[in-house]
Amino acid sequence: MAVISSAADHEAQVEAILRAWGMPRAQAGETAEILGYADLHGIDSHGMSMLPPYDQWRREGRLDLAAVPKVVKESPVSALVDGGGGLGHVPGAFAMRLAVAKAGVSGIGVCVVRNTSHFGACGYYGLIAAEAGLIGMVSTSASGVRVAPTGGASARLGTDPWCFAAPGEPGRPFLLDMATTTVAFGRVRNKANEGLPTPSGWVLDAEGRPSVDPTDVSERGGLLTSLGGTAENSSHKGYGLAMMADILSAGLAGESFPSDPLHAKGERVGLAHFFLAMDPGLFREADAFKADVARFGDAMRATPPLDPGRPVLVAGDPERAMAVRRRVEGVPMGDGLRAQIRAIAEASGADWLL
Amino acid sequence: MAVISSAADHEAQVEAILRAWGMPRAQAGETAEILGYADLHGIDSHGMSMLPPYDQWRREGRLDLAAVPKVVKESPVSALVDGGGGLGHVPGAFAMRLAVAKAGVSGIGVCVVRNTSHFGACGYYGLIAAEAGLIGMVSTSASGVRVAPTGGASARLGTDPWCFAAPGEPGRPFLLDMATTTVAFGRVRNKANEGLPTPSGWVLDAEGRPSVDPTDVSERGGLLTSLGGTAENSSHKGYGLAMMADILSAGLAGESFPSDPLHAKGERVGLAHFFLAMDPGLFREADAFKADVARFGDAMRATPPLDPGRPVLVAGDPERAMAVRRRVEGVPMGDGLRAQIRAIAEASGADWLL
Repeated sequence: MAVISSAADHEAQVEAILRAWGMPRAQAGETAEILGYADLHGIDSHGMSMLPPYDQWRREGRLDLAAVPKVVKESPVSALVDGGGGLGHVPGAFAMRLAVAKAGVSGIGVCVVRNTSHFGACGYYGLIAAEAGLIGMVSTSASGVRVAPTGGASARLGTDPWCFAAPGEPGRPFLLDMATTTVAFGRVRNKANEGLPTPSGWVLDAEGRPSVDPTDVSERGGLLTSLGGTAENSSHKGYGLAMMADILSAGLAGESFPSDPLHAKGERVGLAHFFLAMDPGLFREADAFKADVARFGDAMRATPPLDPGRPVLVAGDPERAMAVRRRVEGVPMGDGLRAQIRAIAEASGADWLL
Repeated sequence: MAVISSAADHEAQVEAILRAWGMPRAQAGETAEILGYADLHGIDSHGMSMLPPYDQWRREGRLDLAAVPKVVKESPVSALVDGGGGLGHVPGAFAMRLAVAKAGVSGIGVCVVRNTSHFGACGYYGLIAAEAGLIGMVSTSASGVRVAPTGGASARLGTDPWCFAAPGEPGRPFLLDMATTTVAFGRVRNKANEGLPTPSGWVLDAEGRPSVDPTDVSERGGLLTSLGGTAENSSHKGYGLAMMADILSAGLAGESFPSDPLHAKGERVGLAHFFLAMDPGLFREADAFKADVARFGDAMRATPPLDPGRPVLVAGDPERAMAVRRRVEGVPMGDGLRAQIRAIAEASGADWLL
């Protein structure tokens, strides 16, 4: 069962909880908007459902909810930003906007954020670049260590996601937002929250055996598979993409890797993010590039589908379609998650708006 | 059956054929070195086995074997290079070296090559960046159109590969060189050349049904699966990575996409490549970064393995181990390929050295 609320109420509930936690108005508004973006676009694993783990970090005293991002090292094409030990949304948006500004002057900008934590859905930041007419790349280290390297029997990596974005038709950029595992942990957690099994190939139990029980991962130390699924079907590629996501974020920021024994267990959460923005005008007329990206996407959408009722989609299409629907119909919330969020609101003295 | 020859003889055979085709000495030497790198490192799909398709392009009059790369648009952080309508190896190495040089001055360099063709293994170019102490990214459009977008029943994409590289322990950089399909076409072609079946999950027949017959792809219009393998197991991620590889190469270069009806069918082959080099010193002390990348890799290698006889590897390790072995034992060549190469050598008047 799911209760449905308007996107505005849903986002207001997130903001009310963040404010009750002591986050200043400006940061709470932006953080709620970014979490609301995820839920509105159907990325349920990275919206409201992140409040329980954020609440745990907060109660452990490991988040500075009033943190303000600061530039600590800079060049015409780059900046290292210190997130101040808070949530990652505000420094993430700041860093991508700074990368966009640098790309406006130098053609390319790369910003890395250190001393940060979870920043919601990668795609939000890639979209900032694409909406500015730029190519965007984003990666981040993840806090949960739930993935074994190919051929390994113990977890050493997170879901360590990437976003790749490119401007095309206005309002319809190419926007690939992907965990480097077969699926994001949040999708497994959401199955567990609702008591549903996971499809074959998503998870392994703690001994590395295939499983369809999401609680093997959420409760009993099981593992997510790297994209590819098995060694024979090239899970080393998903594993390699995860390492590179960590190298660009944690590596360039000087934060811990998921394989470090104390990763995300310190006084601060200690994650890191990577943002790149690049002007296609460095190479050719930008409008011609955008027209070509639009044409490329349309060629995909025009591919004869395997199932006549299910047209071929392009990265970004499913999320945009979901946002159109949820803006009208509202945002659903399963009973399991709803109970958790209600308890968090009550414990922190936030109004219940849903 | 395979005949084994020394790496030097193997590379000399490639060079002799390129010279017999009319490629000038300097270009032939560099091209042979890059193809020899692939065979030496066990990337058999991208070395000598590419000579038959190159020969076909040549006989069709679609390769300028004496082409010299030229910079046609430039900024302190970027260059657009025209490959001159030849093979891609020489302009590829030129463009990555130019990106490295720009990164030396500006911290980052991005070069795109247009009017080019196949450039061998992506990893060769990523390694140029890593050996210069820089992070490297490479992508290219592919000539073969053998991959359907997720949910589609017709081929619209190539294997469109990526390389991600980062310097770590000297001589042992992180080096991920991956097709965005479950496997590269060359690995399927090599199975077909030797009359062997493909593992489950690698290929689909022309109607999109799972198959283990590599000739379904090499001879009967079958398809490769995108990394992930099935829609349920997130093949949209491999599909999206393929689109982004094309956007960064063909899109920024203004060349055709694999979905264009005349892709790689024009007077010139018309592929494009993308190269990025970035100095980790933009963000922190470069030696500390490299030490962290080395430590991260060592943590993976120290993971308890599923099979005690097969230690966990890091991207770049399998290829380096193969190169150590083949430098001593020589480079093997299956009978099917050997017969093809011998016929090409005879037809072009090149000495037979193997």
